Amino acid sequence: MKMISLQDVQEAHSRIREHVIKTPVMTSNTINEMTNSEVFFKCENFQRVGAFKFRGALNAVSQLDEEQKTRGVVTHSSGNHAQALSLAASKLGVKATIVMPSNAPQVKVDATRGYGASIVFCEPTVESRVYTANELVKQHGYFLIHPYDNEQIIAGAGTAALELVQEYGELDALFCPIGGGGLISGTSIAVKGLSESTKVIGAEPKQADDAYRSIRDGKIYPSIKPNTIADGLRTSLAELTFNIISENVDEIVLVTETEIVDAMRLLWERMKLVVEPSGAVPLAALLSEGKRFQKQRIGVILSGGNVDLSSFFENYYAMINSESS
Amino acid sequence: MKMISLQDVQEAHSRIREHVIKTPVMTSNTINEMTNSEVFFKCENFQRVGAFKFRGALNAVSQLDEEQKTRGVVTHSSGNHAQALSLAASKLGVKATIVMPSNAPQVKVDATRGYGASIVFCEPTVESRVYTANELVKQHGYFLIHPYDNEQIIAGAGTAALELVQEYGELDALFCPIGGGGLISGTSIAVKGLSESTKVIGAEPKQADDAYRSIRDGKIYPSIKPNTIADGLRTSLAELTFNIISENVDEIVLVTETEIVDAMRLLWERMKLVVEPSGAVPLAALLSEGKRFQKQRIGVILSGGNVDLSSFFENYYAMINSESS
Repeated sequence: MKMISLQDVQEAHSRIREHVIKTPVMTSNTINEMTNSEVFFKCENFQRVGAFKFRGALNAVSQLDEEQKTRGVVTHSSGNHAQALSLAASKLGVKATIVMPSNAPQVKVDATRGYGASIVFCEPTVESRVYTANELVKQHGYFLIHPYDNEQIIAGAGTAALELVQEYGELDALFCPIGGGGLISGTSIAVKGLSESTKVIGAEPKQADDAYRSIRDGKIYPSIKPNTIADGLRTSLAELTFNIISENVDEIVLVTETEIVDAMRLLWERMKLVVEPSGAVPLAALLSEGKRFQKQRIGVILSGGNVDLSSFFENYYAMINSESS
Repeated sequence: MKMISLQDVQEAHSRIREHVIKTPVMTSNTINEMTNSEVFFKCENFQRVGAFKFRGALNAVSQLDEEQKTRGVVTHSSGNHAQALSLAASKLGVKATIVMPSNAPQVKVDATRGYGASIVFCEPTVESRVYTANELVKQHGYFLIHPYDNEQIIAGAGTAALELVQEYGELDALFCPIGGGGLISGTSIAVKGLSESTKVIGAEPKQADDAYRSIRDGKIYPSIKPNTIADGLRTSLAELTFNIISENVDEIVLVTETEIVDAMRLLWERMKLVVEPSGAVPLAALLSEGKRFQKQRIGVILSGGNVDLSSFFENYYAMINSESS
């Protein structure tokens, strides 16, 4: 198996840096006091399409050959990867087709179409998603870009941590969410490559703890009916991410749903950042394990900020209508 | 009357710069495309206490003489100025007393106490607030620091725009909210001082248009039962801010409540920024008057991010409780 190296992440960065946002790093006095540490938040909620996913998608699409570019790309996702791949493809003039479950929220369908992708609907099961995507590959010769079981996606994802360490120097520890494992794979390659002594801590919902159990038992467990609000972290590991995490990640911390919402609330109320539940999971892990991480320099990857705010704003519209009448 | 100068703003900046956050300036491809301009958002929602108010409060408290510092400061406010003054006073070891209406939200009372201030409650009327504060001045010799009818508060408020122009260069126009007029007074002094040709545009809710009418008619109107969700903009001008605005501000744009919520929604959904309704008012003005401001370099002051998110997060907690049961 070819392992991905720091150099792959650095090359990905050179390839994509002009088109991705070099997201700001934010700090909070409140959270520094709570943790008795210095915490650096890498704000990928400010990335294009609102999540780190754009980095990997652009890195992958950039490396297609001319024939692949002409045929187009396909993926299955109803989340941030769908929009990230659509935008990356559209930027490079490549046709993108996204397989989405028939029950995907209209807002995500519209957003993905908004970036110029075609949508093909399938039954709302993992099997149907994979089958439908593979059929499209067979029938049209589209190139499949998996959301995380892909070396170029992983190398691209690692560029966020690369920027963080380049800008703020060596960290004692870095907290990162684990879903399918693409982000933490790229992150750990970048961080360990730059400074071997930095601890890389995965953060996962207790109610979607397949990665924790997989690493503990040395075999990949599927993620069966994960009951977490962290919708980006419901997927299971792939062989590639399983291997990288086994080698690179020092520890996986599990957090409760309440801890996730508490952390999200801190990010919104105190830091004024719109962060999605999945993005709040690493802060939840840091806060729950804080005693072990005092007086350190700690990085936290805020992976994304895509939250459905419709009902929040419906309340505002209702409020002003009732007030003006 | 002593007018405030660019030099006053620059001196305020030297005085407070080590203790305030040099807030980031954010941009958005979506909003640049919508406006066909380059828009720079100065993010004072990331300032200490979540609003620009900390700049002026710290500038004012820093300049007290020893006797004033020993006696302590007082103000009347249930909003961002209360917390800003409390924190500024606490940083400099000065006692702060805040007069709040008896119906002030508990969350604001707690936050202000959290910064170490004492609270004195009064009847929920403007008369009672002013009377109670003046009584405290008489009885205890406290030094009154008005939220905006104060030269040091205004000079401090201007440091946000100063940083924006110093970092990003001359602007064609700058949009700023108008409540009592302190922020736009300081902002216009800084901006016009650095580049006379930059247009300074005030933004005010149509349903709290006292500043618009005051400037139009050349006399200060009180703000009577202003029916706007932009709770920071319900106050009326003072003589000091009226005079500065009359001289410096090129235009006041009025916006509807729907335009305010639309702008707020863009800031949250697209830019992932928690901004309070008052802070969204200048973007609402830019979007409503966009045709006149194309292909320009435009600054927007996002004045604050203090929004009550209790019910938003109560929904989240309810969601996870019902899911885990």
